[in-house]
Amino acid sequence: MKKKFLCCCPSLIPSRETACFYLLCVLIALYMLAGAAIFSSLERPAEVKAHQLWERRLRDFSHEHNINCKDLKSLLFHYEEARTAGIRAERGRALWDFPGAFYFVGTVVSTIGFGVTAPITGTGKVLLVFYGLLGCSATILFFNLFLERVITLLSLMIFWCHRRRTGNSGLLGRAIEDNGNEEWKPSVYQVTLILFVAVLLVACGAASLYSAMEGWTYAESLYFCFVAFSTVGFGDFVSGQRENHEDTWAYQVANCLLMLLGVCCTYSLFNTISVIIKQGLNWMLRTLAWMFGG
Amino acid sequence: MKKKFLCCCPSLIPSRETACFYLLCVLIALYMLAGAAIFSSLERPAEVKAHQLWERRLRDFSHEHNINCKDLKSLLFHYEEARTAGIRAERGRALWDFPGAFYFVGTVVSTIGFGVTAPITGTGKVLLVFYGLLGCSATILFFNLFLERVITLLSLMIFWCHRRRTGNSGLLGRAIEDNGNEEWKPSVYQVTLILFVAVLLVACGAASLYSAMEGWTYAESLYFCFVAFSTVGFGDFVSGQRENHEDTWAYQVANCLLMLLGVCCTYSLFNTISVIIKQGLNWMLRTLAWMFGG
Ligand SMILES: [K+]
Ligand SMILES: [K+]
Repeated sequence: MKKKFLCCCPSLIPSRETACFYLLCVLIALYMLAGAAIFSSLERPAEVKAHQLWERRLRDFSHEHNINCKDLKSLLFHYEEARTAGIRAERGRALWDFPGAFYFVGTVVSTIGFGVTAPITGTGKVLLVFYGLLGCSATILFFNLFLERVITLLSLMIFWCHRRRTGNSGLLGRAIEDNGNEEWKPSVYQVTLILFVAVLLVACGAASLYSAMEGWTYAESLYFCFVAFSTVGFGDFVSGQRENHEDTWAYQVANCLLMLLGVCCTYSLFNTISVIIKQGLNWMLRTLAWMFGG
Repeated sequence: MKKKFLCCCPSLIPSRETACFYLLCVLIALYMLAGAAIFSSLERPAEVKAHQLWERRLRDFSHEHNINCKDLKSLLFHYEEARTAGIRAERGRALWDFPGAFYFVGTVVSTIGFGVTAPITGTGKVLLVFYGLLGCSATILFFNLFLERVITLLSLMIFWCHRRRTGNSGLLGRAIEDNGNEEWKPSVYQVTLILFVAVLLVACGAASLYSAMEGWTYAESLYFCFVAFSTVGFGDFVSGQRENHEDTWAYQVANCLLMLLGVCCTYSLFNTISVIIKQGLNWMLRTLAWMFGG
């Protein structure tokens, strides 16, 4: 059974596409350099301050209880080891019971990877590689199918609004619908705006829930939402890890569903923004070509 | 300037596509439940053991140095606070110097998000949301353009091999090439296999480097490579964080380039596997339709 590859793969790429790719590489590199400079200048002083505070606290504790600093450090090494297995100073929920493992598996296939739970056994690590390979691929397909569906839905919505506004109803409208919307397409800006509002609404809703249940401020909850929805998943804030959350099934389910909805919407948003970026790149290339008389 | 949306958005989706989507949802849910059960049974005993070990160590330390357990816990709370700012018991490199911030920014735009470094200042957190929004979108575009290029390149490679093997050279070959490879398309299985071998080679190469530089075993390095390349990024292993790495520019650059190459190849691999999964779903739907006489 030799199936042909479904993707279109033209052998002669238009050189504009390739130029677009190289321009994007350069711009991303510059964007990263600029970002590094800004974040470095923002966060470095806080890091130095945190270092000093911690060193002082460690010294004070060592003096107060008359313990060798080396002994304390060895305790902290052990703590680090325990942390890898998911143990925290603040007593949290069990991580590898079934709901915990389900949450973990969700962070794997969505590639969020908070890292509060990560396999510590050798078998678990080996299994993770194979499990993730299939799971992440399936999720990419899921996201892409979701994206298609969202774009279709939004196109229809915008089309209906457009028709109602222009009063262009009846035969023409139906004809366009029957033709598979070929003649009328919504602007990418409209779709992006709607998706942006959708992400914002989901994030605001989720943040209200998290700020009530996790003891975070509303701003922290919004930050968590962005970090989770974009699948970056630093793990500095992780929802549903407190001891009392073990018994609140409703919250755990709501948490998973909100996360799913948020990740799907954000993935779609990123994709529509990437279309806008591509248009911008093409515009820049045209301008460059015009400037240098290409 | 009202640009039309570039994506194709048919208003009448074939119901097979929608069925495919729902089937995928069900299968992913089952896959996650199965995964949760397996990982829970694998990791739960290790978690309990790690808990006991840590409780014993804490108790022993408290007895040995005659300190109240509550005092020790308060130290650990402070340590947790310091950890959020990137401070570790084992002295590591500065996190927010320029190369560190660049590494951080890389983990944001690629959505790896190891979380060793995460912004702790309020301004940093707010900035991250906007920075990530644009950065992640640009990277998605980058990955998609890379994917197109890789598929084209592999298609040409396979085509040349195919032509050489069948001796079908000269005019026909050139004609197919000029027609933009429309008539001849490589099998998705061939492309997937090549990408799989490519990811494996990059991972093995990177793992040799990491096991030499990070003090991890080769197996741990391979596990790290998978976790990083798939952009899951748990943060249980993070490359380039040791104190001596601050001075090894060559290693830091190699680390970034390997990560970039690995992530790009793995993204392409996931996408080709997702095409195979879609074929599998369609086959399942046909079988189901046949079984129930649809
Ligand atoms: K992560
Ligand atoms: K991630």
